[in-house]
Amino acid sequence: MAGISNNEIKWVKSLWQKKNRDETGLFIAEGEKMLQEARQSGFKVEKVYRREEIGEEAMSRISSQSSPSPVLAVLHQGGIPFPKDGKGLFLALDGVRDPGNLGTILRIADWFGISGVYVSPDTVEVYNPKVVQSTMGSIFRVPVCECDIAKLCAEQRARGRRVYGTLLDGDNIYSQKLETEGLIVMGNESEGLSPAVRSEITDALLIPSFARGAGAESLNVAVATAITVSEFRRRSH
Amino acid sequence: MAGISNNEIKWVKSLWQKKNRDETGLFIAEGEKMLQEARQSGFKVEKVYRREEIGEEAMSRISSQSSPSPVLAVLHQGGIPFPKDGKGLFLALDGVRDPGNLGTILRIADWFGISGVYVSPDTVEVYNPKVVQSTMGSIFRVPVCECDIAKLCAEQRARGRRVYGTLLDGDNIYSQKLETEGLIVMGNESEGLSPAVRSEITDALLIPSFARGAGAESLNVAVATAITVSEFRRRSH
Repeated sequence: MAGISNNEIKWVKSLWQKKNRDETGLFIAEGEKMLQEARQSGFKVEKVYRREEIGEEAMSRISSQSSPSPVLAVLHQGGIPFPKDGKGLFLALDGVRDPGNLGTILRIADWFGISGVYVSPDTVEVYNPKVVQSTMGSIFRVPVCECDIAKLCAEQRARGRRVYGTLLDGDNIYSQKLETEGLIVMGNESEGLSPAVRSEITDALLIPSFARGAGAESLNVAVATAITVSEFRRRSH
Repeated sequence: MAGISNNEIKWVKSLWQKKNRDETGLFIAEGEKMLQEARQSGFKVEKVYRREEIGEEAMSRISSQSSPSPVLAVLHQGGIPFPKDGKGLFLALDGVRDPGNLGTILRIADWFGISGVYVSPDTVEVYNPKVVQSTMGSIFRVPVCECDIAKLCAEQRARGRRVYGTLLDGDNIYSQKLETEGLIVMGNESEGLSPAVRSEITDALLIPSFARGAGAESLNVAVATAITVSEFRRRSH
């Protein structure tokens, strides 16, 4: 018979829910490459299911994807220590709600060697299966830490560090002075930065529009993050 | 009775399919703001449905979204003439498959004043409802033209114009010379540029990674487009 019981199927499926992920400290990642990268990064593996062992039907029942991968791994959360010294370039996300956006931002952070990503409690959970899959493995390399972003910004300011945020009345990012270290805060998809966070920004940045006449009102938050982080790295290059 | 017949519901729903959009030359856009922007850009409106007129149930039947907007418009395709003189900075998409990526790229093109976006026949259709919604209105402002991208690149080269493409063995985009006009070609989500297009690139660009140790293998195509276009615009700024 197939190598998975109904109770085990229920257990894996329970990890689609945040409540159960929180309680167990586990999460799901799908795909051979994801599993390899989890192992390389020292994430503890609880259980691995393979299509050739449990069958296609069971696989499609436990998978959170519309096209199930041949491999699904149940992993332990918290495999990456968050850097305590605060040295380097950090990101802070103030209410990013879309799983694809968070996944893409972690992939950007990975590519550009961001030291760590702070997320507000109202940012989509990093272990959400859609976030995990859209990081394309970056979730296993980028340190993430949940905290109160306004408080974090205030602390950073008090320690004399720069707190950068993109605002519509900010200064042109291409000509503004940018330090090699500091905190870059990105806001919610429709609301931008919350008022409490906005008042803690030391350097307001603007990505200028080049539209002739009426143009787009804003950039997607992952796109704005990419352009901002790229510009910081270009300067220190 | 409600202001929409079953046949009309069927007709609107038929426009979820590319085949029917191609045959009729119509497409769907949802949301009051989308409708306003379509009108501002001179798109011909065939029909508008409002929740208060046809009821919530009918609205949810014709909507292609999981959370239907209070307004759905049936519009005529092809509202924006494509610039023929070829002056300016253009994008070409060689097999971008994900609707969200194409929508995000059109939003980037709008923000950065790109003169026009060429799309290959195997790029996701621009009037796909998911593309339309994810452009956030930019579909009504950015000229889009379907063509054979390899042929286009060859023509551009023959006319002495630069053809830029991001390749893993390209030159660092931050230090490479970039002209203010030309064509930037972006490839498929997993395969990158097709071999036929690759051989027509005059300037291969690389967005350098700053990861310490193992990092992300690639950037999302919309993210790479954003960083590339931003760097072109920064130079001409």
